[in-house]
Amino acid sequence: MHLTLENPLDMHLHLREREMLALVAPCSAAQFAGGVIMPNLVQPVDSLERLRAYRAAILDACAGEPFTPYMTLFFRSYHREELLAARDEIIGLKLYPAGITTQSESGVRDFDRIGDTVALLEDLDIPLLVHGETDGFVMEREREFLRVYQWLAETFPRLRLVMEHITTAEAVELLDRYDNVGATVTLHHLLITLDDVVGGLLQPDLFCKPIAKTPRDREALRQAVLAGHPRLMFGSDSAPHPRHKKECCGCAAGVFSAPVLLPALAQLFEEADCLERLADFVSHHARRFYRLRPPHKQVHLVRAPWTVMEQYETLRPFLAGQTLRWRVEKRP
Amino acid sequence: MHLTLENPLDMHLHLREREMLALVAPCSAAQFAGGVIMPNLVQPVDSLERLRAYRAAILDACAGEPFTPYMTLFFRSYHREELLAARDEIIGLKLYPAGITTQSESGVRDFDRIGDTVALLEDLDIPLLVHGETDGFVMEREREFLRVYQWLAETFPRLRLVMEHITTAEAVELLDRYDNVGATVTLHHLLITLDDVVGGLLQPDLFCKPIAKTPRDREALRQAVLAGHPRLMFGSDSAPHPRHKKECCGCAAGVFSAPVLLPALAQLFEEADCLERLADFVSHHARRFYRLRPPHKQVHLVRAPWTVMEQYETLRPFLAGQTLRWRVEKRP
Repeated sequence: MHLTLENPLDMHLHLREREMLALVAPCSAAQFAGGVIMPNLVQPVDSLERLRAYRAAILDACAGEPFTPYMTLFFRSYHREELLAARDEIIGLKLYPAGITTQSESGVRDFDRIGDTVALLEDLDIPLLVHGETDGFVMEREREFLRVYQWLAETFPRLRLVMEHITTAEAVELLDRYDNVGATVTLHHLLITLDDVVGGLLQPDLFCKPIAKTPRDREALRQAVLAGHPRLMFGSDSAPHPRHKKECCGCAAGVFSAPVLLPALAQLFEEADCLERLADFVSHHARRFYRLRPPHKQVHLVRAPWTVMEQYETLRPFLAGQTLRWRVEKRP
Repeated sequence: MHLTLENPLDMHLHLREREMLALVAPCSAAQFAGGVIMPNLVQPVDSLERLRAYRAAILDACAGEPFTPYMTLFFRSYHREELLAARDEIIGLKLYPAGITTQSESGVRDFDRIGDTVALLEDLDIPLLVHGETDGFVMEREREFLRVYQWLAETFPRLRLVMEHITTAEAVELLDRYDNVGATVTLHHLLITLDDVVGGLLQPDLFCKPIAKTPRDREALRQAVLAGHPRLMFGSDSAPHPRHKKECCGCAAGVFSAPVLLPALAQLFEEADCLERLADFVSHHARRFYRLRPPHKQVHLVRAPWTVMEQYETLRPFLAGQTLRWRVEKRP
């Protein structure tokens, strides 16, 4: 059995820089027509100059495989002129609360002071992508942040707002209250709960932010995604860290899922008997919400067993060693 | 300022075997008059013969420092004669649900079949110590197990039952419903929550079973302990694993707290303005519940800054690198 996806998109992707970029970009380019590139580099991508250099580096790393990097600027206070100049080259601004995740130290400390820039985004019709967590108790951070989403959605009703990598039942509920709000969901938050991270032996490879939540939360995510909620978009949040940073004392957050995304998603949708909705989740919903017209690209999957590599150079991929029922088929 | 503790006791202690035993036993002997020794060795301590050999090895490892190992037998079906023969040499039986924590594979699989042995314990007045977790979602395992405690407490009203290393507000509440039920509380569950384990960088050194819970749970534990609940006893659950087993992919559960226990507890009780209750928590409650008469031993603390070593041989101790306000004073 074969499955051809037209323009699959990964709407939340960390590609890093230099050697790591060169290592991981081909994984994404092999499976997707494009992806939304996160700007939280060691030095954040918060100027058009840095953004252009980063996009060029990404295209270079894809080594001839067609892949559209949808660039984001790191949220800070921007002038109208800056945003006007950037508008045609970005898909949106990415907002991080300060210190909340990897390389987010220069993020927002005071939400009372973001209104002017957000108003500009609304006016210029530039989407706002948000890492929505407070600094509260780890299992409640997303739920606590929902009031910020609510405030943004109500104060800026024409703003296209994306709740990134949602993980809770309550975030799914919020989605239904505001037409101007969309959300990305990762593969790993559809598959794992906190149990997989700390329930048996500790699994550093599954440690990520937001942390995987409860079975009830995962069920709510799955139901909404598999039922085809039109404002839920696939975004992997694939986030590579070299193994020594994942397994030392105090290790970094991030699941490197890029090599397994479409095969694992196909398996999940097939198991739920709704394989026909996969294309909506990995492409159509995002194209509609963001009004994208990616250059045409097909990705082919074949229903044949495939065992995920234990190691991808210095990285351990999500689902390492597991055998999936689908694999990506390379066609010349 | 000085503080002298009469016969401090650690009512839940993992000393392991061989090199590890030799390494960690002196840490406990330096701070405690005795401790309840857990029987979940690679080959469980489930016969009087193994128990005697293990006690001898422990006394040997204490190297002249007076320390009473209160031995436990690993719970299985026992005959009356076996228990009669063991009674004077054990403080109780330790029950593990099968597979629930380190080296518990031979634990209880079917709680419907433990009644005969538990009835013997009640009849012979031998305490039952229980690792109370189900195999459910990691944050709910203890709460789910409370119905087993409840069943035991009600079915065997004369049995002395100890809920080991409790971590939840609901376990504290249950304590008040049954006079025949006691509980141990660790140092680390009084200090940390899940936030400390997975809220920032991942901290393998703080990964333990039961997993640290929510701020609300920690607050309930603290309140009950610091208010001097008479059936709450200190039990460290200090559980050494060599560093390579703590920090590899899939690392082992256990906090090695033995080197810091009394200084950290003194600080906690002092901060809550109830230092006078420390002796109850670390000695009197256990002596009363278990009716113990340990050989006389004093341990002296002095209020002077002490920085916890970063590394104790192959182990990383709890609170490594932190400066505490109390230290143990060695008197010749």
